Amino acid sequence: MMISPGQPPDMSLIDAVTIDRLRDAARRLRGIANRTPIHRSRWLNEQVGCEVFIKCESFQRVGAFKFRGAYNALSRLHPDSAGVLTYSSGNHAQSVALASATLGLRAVIIMPNNAPPIKRAATRGYLARAAPGSELVEYDPASTTRELLGREIAEREGLTVVPPYDHPDVIAGQGTAGLELLEDAGALDAIWVPCGGGGLVSGTAVAAAGVCPTCKIIGVEPELADDATRSFQTGRLQTVTNPPTIADGARTPYLGRYTFPLVVRYVSEMMTVREDEIASAALTFMERLKLVVEPTGALGLAGLLARAAAGELPYRRVGVIISGGNLDPAVVSDLIRLRNART
Amino acid sequence: MMISPGQPPDMSLIDAVTIDRLRDAARRLRGIANRTPIHRSRWLNEQVGCEVFIKCESFQRVGAFKFRGAYNALSRLHPDSAGVLTYSSGNHAQSVALASATLGLRAVIIMPNNAPPIKRAATRGYLARAAPGSELVEYDPASTTRELLGREIAEREGLTVVPPYDHPDVIAGQGTAGLELLEDAGALDAIWVPCGGGGLVSGTAVAAAGVCPTCKIIGVEPELADDATRSFQTGRLQTVTNPPTIADGARTPYLGRYTFPLVVRYVSEMMTVREDEIASAALTFMERLKLVVEPTGALGLAGLLARAAAGELPYRRVGVIISGGNLDPAVVSDLIRLRNART
Repeated sequence: MMISPGQPPDMSLIDAVTIDRLRDAARRLRGIANRTPIHRSRWLNEQVGCEVFIKCESFQRVGAFKFRGAYNALSRLHPDSAGVLTYSSGNHAQSVALASATLGLRAVIIMPNNAPPIKRAATRGYLARAAPGSELVEYDPASTTRELLGREIAEREGLTVVPPYDHPDVIAGQGTAGLELLEDAGALDAIWVPCGGGGLVSGTAVAAAGVCPTCKIIGVEPELADDATRSFQTGRLQTVTNPPTIADGARTPYLGRYTFPLVVRYVSEMMTVREDEIASAALTFMERLKLVVEPTGALGLAGLLARAAAGELPYRRVGVIISGGNLDPAVVSDLIRLRNART
Repeated sequence: MMISPGQPPDMSLIDAVTIDRLRDAARRLRGIANRTPIHRSRWLNEQVGCEVFIKCESFQRVGAFKFRGAYNALSRLHPDSAGVLTYSSGNHAQSVALASATLGLRAVIIMPNNAPPIKRAATRGYLARAAPGSELVEYDPASTTRELLGREIAEREGLTVVPPYDHPDVIAGQGTAGLELLEDAGALDAIWVPCGGGGLVSGTAVAAAGVCPTCKIIGVEPELADDATRSFQTGRLQTVTNPPTIADGARTPYLGRYTFPLVVRYVSEMMTVREDEIASAALTFMERLKLVVEPTGALGLAGLLARAAAGELPYRRVGVIISGGNLDPAVVSDLIRLRNART
């Protein structure tokens, strides 16, 4: 199913995610997902010289936008479905587990046995409320890959695989975050969006194309994990392997079959930020906006601040999406070190 | 002006702060102070077995409820006032500086020369926009006290002293936080409130007595700085001296002339929490609610969680006030250590 490195995007897939699909997703999520607040900051507005509207998906259920896509995809399964399977060590796993519990589905989650205990515990907590047979399967990442193991279990048990980003229903769900931002803030000139596998940024770009076509969508990646930026610039799929960025949500190796053409068509621009800029943005959220934001979640602000520092901000009203708030307090000291040691 | 240790509260001062004074303060603050949001958490509700409404003064201007009282007091000065003076190394200093800038007043702020550089810088930033002659006066805490120095400067220059908590207009301003909580959440059975000098807890108690008399108000102090709890229990003013609690906002030595009788009359109960409980509550805000809360700001949640753990929570709907969010990221590692090392 995956697209091969070096290939161009398959533009025939572009209609799989449309503004109508986003609106359908928004209807399904109503009353289930949180309509997260938009925060503003006088200090930040003065720093960058324009009005900034910050969409706080840190206050989404499970602490990240991922719940939107997972719930949307699961709620569209056939009623006779035997259940779902996914592999993730991060926010997507918890999202599928919680969505399964909410919908009464069976879920099997595949997670490496070195995933943080707190994430395994949270996922188990949600699975305990999902349908019987739901379980967390741990595997040794040295001996097999999660895709192989996942395919084997899914085929044997008739489960539907719900991937973390490369699925039209997942992308449409993620895009509702951008849709809400534009609905609640009104027209914006540009929105900075964190980019890992491209689900959030492409979904948000589809939303903007539908309701505010003049709004530029700028995807932000770590410099150390710049596969999407290079793919965007070259028109051929580029990859990274286990990039050592602190933004763990952006360590994804490549854009997907669906997200690549959507990014190429709808995203205005891709940019990268240094590790010290990511750390500084995450700490700025903490110190100035009093918001807990994980490193990946701070990519958007890091991009905006970099542009402002370069004097490249010809806008009046801009948006920033915080993708998630699952920051381990133990990581704060790493952020302080990284900010002080400009890479 | 201060009340002497061992003295009973002067109950004749009780009418200096009434629900009408709070409503006046609320009118003055409208459009100036933020009407801070109330956050809720499914996880927390399940933990404690009732519905919890969290008033987030971390999102107040200057990051703490202190702006309410400072602005209310300053806005009531006579138009011919020569300006104001205050002494504080914390959120009150920044609040008076910002309120002076907003009102175009002259402000002199007295701060120890060992106050955190970030707080001095923030205060200077606000003072730069206040009326001419505004300044930050640093002093050596080894050679003089801030009260002596403050009185000297205030008398010489005709400035009005605005103390951090023991002033009817300051208390009425702080009480608007509790008033908003009760207006936005509806009737509550109890509210847990951080207690330092007693401005927030007594103001909130006056609010509750006015609009929801059945609501219990529970003030929470660090065990290491339990002067208000002992004063409440004995009916005589008790003091502490430089208590080594991580909750720096609760290191105040004693209740004031006004706050003592108000606490005795309107507060239902005072309780203390251990340092590890304070640290754990501050980290719970970070990990679970994605809110940045300073240690003092977490006292209310620490109190609620302690009661829940003891099975002493016969309530359906309760409130918690977060007093402030000015958490130095460098302190997070201290919080982790404290949580793990139960004192």
